[in-house]
Amino acid sequence: MAKIIRARNFRWDVPLKEYKTEGTGFRDITRQTLLGDGDDEQRLNFLTRYFEVQPGGYSSLERHEHPHAVVILRGEGEVILGDRVESVSVHDCVFISSHSLHQFHATGSEPLGFLCVVDRERDRPQLPAEDELARLNQDETLRKRLRT
Amino acid sequence: MAKIIRARNFRWDVPLKEYKTEGTGFRDITRQTLLGDGDDEQRLNFLTRYFEVQPGGYSSLERHEHPHAVVILRGEGEVILGDRVESVSVHDCVFISSHSLHQFHATGSEPLGFLCVVDRERDRPQLPAEDELARLNQDETLRKRLRT
Repeated sequence: MAKIIRARNFRWDVPLKEYKTEGTGFRDITRQTLLGDGDDEQRLNFLTRYFEVQPGGYSSLERHEHPHAVVILRGEGEVILGDRVESVSVHDCVFISSHSLHQFHATGSEPLGFLCVVDRERDRPQLPAEDELARLNQDETLRKRLRT
Repeated sequence: MAKIIRARNFRWDVPLKEYKTEGTGFRDITRQTLLGDGDDEQRLNFLTRYFEVQPGGYSSLERHEHPHAVVILRGEGEVILGDRVESVSVHDCVFISSHSLHQFHATGSEPLGFLCVVDRERDRPQLPAEDELARLNQDETLRKRLRT
């Protein structure tokens, strides 16, 4: 059934979840699935999630086959995107193509919050291999920014 | 290739398009497809569009099989959702289930802007039949709000 999921200061009437229950290399990040998790929302072939990273926090450095469509809703951040680092702020969009390594960092004084839409059916994230990390660490900008 | 699509006061570096080129019953509304239209974005199975309705404007009163996932980004509005009218404001989400009649109205002094995510492959919108419109018009709240 059609419905409104109301927002109140970046909290919606859905469960507030930990970012992940396994894996390493992330800090101070929460997840709310805004649209797609409800029993009556299974016809949606994609999930609209909201992630919030506290200042100084970051998501996992990972890649996967499925692409991400990201829209920043609050704060300031830097994104590792393949072999470069880009700054982002409110309403910027990020297209994370298949197999692009990525990591979000909250670099401002307020949390970095963003929508991230993905296919309901998707592959699992993969961490970068040791030799790839070594290669990335040769770039000073990347080395200073990435966290594992 | 992974990339940033930067925002500047609700304009992104994508084409600003008219809402529709055919049909009737909409006013003062534009569309930007933020993610999914680019040549390198075809792997996205869904499109992330941004619609902006000027004060007093509205979208088409329509329904379709494919559901909508909507997130309000600016302004105040009212949404016809099936047989009721709901108010919405910034960051509220709207789940428009299959075949639910819907119409967005900008009711505040600033534009109503919202993200609307849909399947790339989807059915065409359908307008309500005359007898359905007659039935809706029996409800005073709906009659005052809906535009055809």
